[in-house]
Amino acid sequence: MPRHPRFSPPIEGMPSTVYSALAHRLSTMPGETYPLHVGDTWMDPPEGCHMEDLLTHEWAGMHRYAPVQGLPRLIDAIVERVRHRTGESIERANVLVTAGATGGLGAVIGALLAPGDEVIILAPYWPLIAGIVTSFHGKVVPVNLLAIHSADDLVAAIEGAITPRTAVLYVNTPNNPTGRVLPRRWIEACAEVARKHDLWLVSDEVYEDYVYEGEHAYARPYAPERTYSAYSYSKAWGMAGNRAGFVIGPASGMDQLRKVSTHTFYSTPTAAQIAAIRAYQDDRGPKWAAAAAAQYAVTGRKAAARLGVPAPEGSTFLFLDVRDHLDDRGLPGFLEQCVDSGLLLAPGPAFGPYPAHVRLCFTCSPPDVVLRGIERLAPLLGR
Amino acid sequence: MPRHPRFSPPIEGMPSTVYSALAHRLSTMPGETYPLHVGDTWMDPPEGCHMEDLLTHEWAGMHRYAPVQGLPRLIDAIVERVRHRTGESIERANVLVTAGATGGLGAVIGALLAPGDEVIILAPYWPLIAGIVTSFHGKVVPVNLLAIHSADDLVAAIEGAITPRTAVLYVNTPNNPTGRVLPRRWIEACAEVARKHDLWLVSDEVYEDYVYEGEHAYARPYAPERTYSAYSYSKAWGMAGNRAGFVIGPASGMDQLRKVSTHTFYSTPTAAQIAAIRAYQDDRGPKWAAAAAAQYAVTGRKAAARLGVPAPEGSTFLFLDVRDHLDDRGLPGFLEQCVDSGLLLAPGPAFGPYPAHVRLCFTCSPPDVVLRGIERLAPLLGR
Repeated sequence: MPRHPRFSPPIEGMPSTVYSALAHRLSTMPGETYPLHVGDTWMDPPEGCHMEDLLTHEWAGMHRYAPVQGLPRLIDAIVERVRHRTGESIERANVLVTAGATGGLGAVIGALLAPGDEVIILAPYWPLIAGIVTSFHGKVVPVNLLAIHSADDLVAAIEGAITPRTAVLYVNTPNNPTGRVLPRRWIEACAEVARKHDLWLVSDEVYEDYVYEGEHAYARPYAPERTYSAYSYSKAWGMAGNRAGFVIGPASGMDQLRKVSTHTFYSTPTAAQIAAIRAYQDDRGPKWAAAAAAQYAVTGRKAAARLGVPAPEGSTFLFLDVRDHLDDRGLPGFLEQCVDSGLLLAPGPAFGPYPAHVRLCFTCSPPDVVLRGIERLAPLLGR
Repeated sequence: MPRHPRFSPPIEGMPSTVYSALAHRLSTMPGETYPLHVGDTWMDPPEGCHMEDLLTHEWAGMHRYAPVQGLPRLIDAIVERVRHRTGESIERANVLVTAGATGGLGAVIGALLAPGDEVIILAPYWPLIAGIVTSFHGKVVPVNLLAIHSADDLVAAIEGAITPRTAVLYVNTPNNPTGRVLPRRWIEACAEVARKHDLWLVSDEVYEDYVYEGEHAYARPYAPERTYSAYSYSKAWGMAGNRAGFVIGPASGMDQLRKVSTHTFYSTPTAAQIAAIRAYQDDRGPKWAAAAAAQYAVTGRKAAARLGVPAPEGSTFLFLDVRDHLDDRGLPGFLEQCVDSGLLLAPGPAFGPYPAHVRLCFTCSPPDVVLRGIERLAPLLGR
C-alpha cells in the first residue's frame, strides 16, 4: 500500500529525467555548447503576441480565472481555423483549451482510461505520452513503426497488439522523434482499425505546421466520432512557456475531458489564451509558422545531409541509429562522448524500445549554432 | 471496459459543474447581478506584476519552457519566504513550482495514490480536492468537522475513518468553504494521527495570508517528514489566471511529484513565475495581501452581521446553513430563488455531505457590489 514513506507504485516505477547529470556537466563546460535534447524553438513569438503586449486595461480579467473550457474568443478563433484547415464541421462544443498539448492529452487519457487499460502507441513516440498513460494508471503498448513499410503491415501490427484491455490507439504525425510524416493511407488505416475494434483514437497534431516533404494527414476527419486531436501553440507559434494548446473531439465527451483538466491545472493561463487570440488576428501566428517552417526545413536538411541520414519530412527532430558507434559502455557512454563534445542529445529509450538511438532537435538554437553542433556530432558518427 | 463510446468509469461518475444553467440565466438578467459562487478576487495583481510589466528583453526565455521544478530565482524566493514565515529549514530541493495549488495538489495526490486508495478529507472541503482524488482513482472519505468540537473529537473521527486502504489525510485552514481558522491544537493532532497511522499529510495553505481572527497554524512543522503543503499565488496575490503556486514537502519525494506535474501540465507558465518573482521583490505581493486582507475582513464581517452568522475567521467565504429556508423544491429551488434575486451561490453538496448549505465568496466583486448582493440574500434567509 502506498502510504508513508511509499509512493504510488506506477509513479515510483517511472524513470526520472536522465538529463540532469549530463546537463549539469554541459553547463560547466567552457565555450559554446549544444543542448539539442529539448524540443523547443529558439525564436521569440510573433510580434504583438509577447506578454508585454497584453494590456490590463484592454483585456478585462486578464489575471483572473478563465472559463475552464477556454476564453470564448479563443474558442471561436480555433473553430474557424480548424474548419479552414481540415474541413471539419466543428462547433464550440468540440473544443477544450488546455495547458499545452501535454495538459490536453492528460485530459484525454485521464478521461478515457480505467486502471489497467492499455494504450497502443505508435513508436518511436513522444516520451510524455508514455508518462501520461502511466500517470493515469494505464499500460503503454508500443507498436514499432521502424519495422513497418505499408498500411497493411501497420494494421497487422496494431491488431496483433490489441487485447481485451486495449482502450486507445495513439498516433503522432509529423512525428516526434523520427521527423517522419506518416502517409495519408496509414492514418486512414489507424481510423479503420480503431473503428473495427471499438477503440478511441488519439492524434497528436502539434507539428501540423511543420511539414517539409509530402502532406500532413489529419486523423479526425476519418473517424470524428472517436478521435481526440491535440494541438499546441508551444510548437506552432513559439509559445512553449505560455502553456496553451487545445483538444478537439466529439462534443458528447468534452465534459469528461473538462473534469480531468479542471482537476489537474483548472483553467488554461488567461494571458496565454489572450496571446493566442492576438496570434490569430491578422494571421500573425500562421505567418510566423510559415516563416519558421521554411527556416527549419533548411536547417533540418543541412543537418541530415552532414550526418548522412534522410532529410526530415516534418517536425523538428532527427532520430539517429547509433548502434555502430557504441563501445562497451553502450548508449550512456555515447551520450558522455557527446557531452565531451559539448552536445546534449536525448536517449533512444525515452522514445520506446530503442536502446541504440538518439534524438536531436534542430530548432532549439539558432541555425548557425545548431549546425556547429552538428559539425561536432558528425565525427562521432564516423562522418 | 472504457472503450469507445465509454469513458473512464470514475470520471463518468463525477458530477459535472452544476452552475452552467443557473449562470446562463443570471447572465440574461437585467441590472446588477451577484455571481458570488466563484472563489476569486475582484482586485488586479500588485503594481509591477501585470503581464505588461514583463519585458521580453529583460527576461530571457520568457516564452520558452521553464525548468519543470520552476525558475531558480523563484525557488530561491520561495525558500526565503517560507523559512521566514514558518521557521522551516527548507532548501531548494523541498520546492516544486506548480500550475496553481490545483496543479500542485494534483501532483501530490497523483504521486501518493494507487487505484482504490482512500483519502480522508476534513469536510466541508474545497470541491476540487475531491475531484483530484477521483481523477487519480482514489476514494474520498469525508470527516465532518461541523460535528467536531475538540482535538480529541477530531482524532476519534479520523481514526474511525481509517481503513487498510487509507493513504492520505487532507486538511485546509483557513478553510474554504467555512471561513474557519482551525485551532493550532487540531493541526497538531492531525500530524500526530498521521504519524501514528503511517499516513501522508497534505495541507492546503492557500489562504495563509487571509486570517481575520486568531492565528494560522502551518501543518508541516509538526510532521515535515510526511507533509506536502500547497500554496497559491492565485489567492495570495490576485493572480488566479496566471496559474502559479507551489508545493513544499520532504525532499526525498519531490521527484515523484515532478513526474506527475510533468505529465499533467509540464512546466508552470514561465510568465506567471516571473510575475511571482517580481511580487516577492520589495515585498510587493505581501504588502498587497496585507491590504487585501484588511479590506476582505471588513466586507466579510459586514456580510456575516447582515446575515446573522458568525464573522469569518479567515479565507474569503461564508458557508450558510439554509435548511430552514427550503421549500419542497429543496436546495435547487433555493438556488433558483437566489438567481431570481440576481445571486449565484455554490451548492453545499459540492463541499461534502451538506445538502442544505450554500457557500458565498465575499471577495469576488468589489465590497459595495458584494454588500448589495448580501442585501438581496438577507430576506431569503428571513433577515
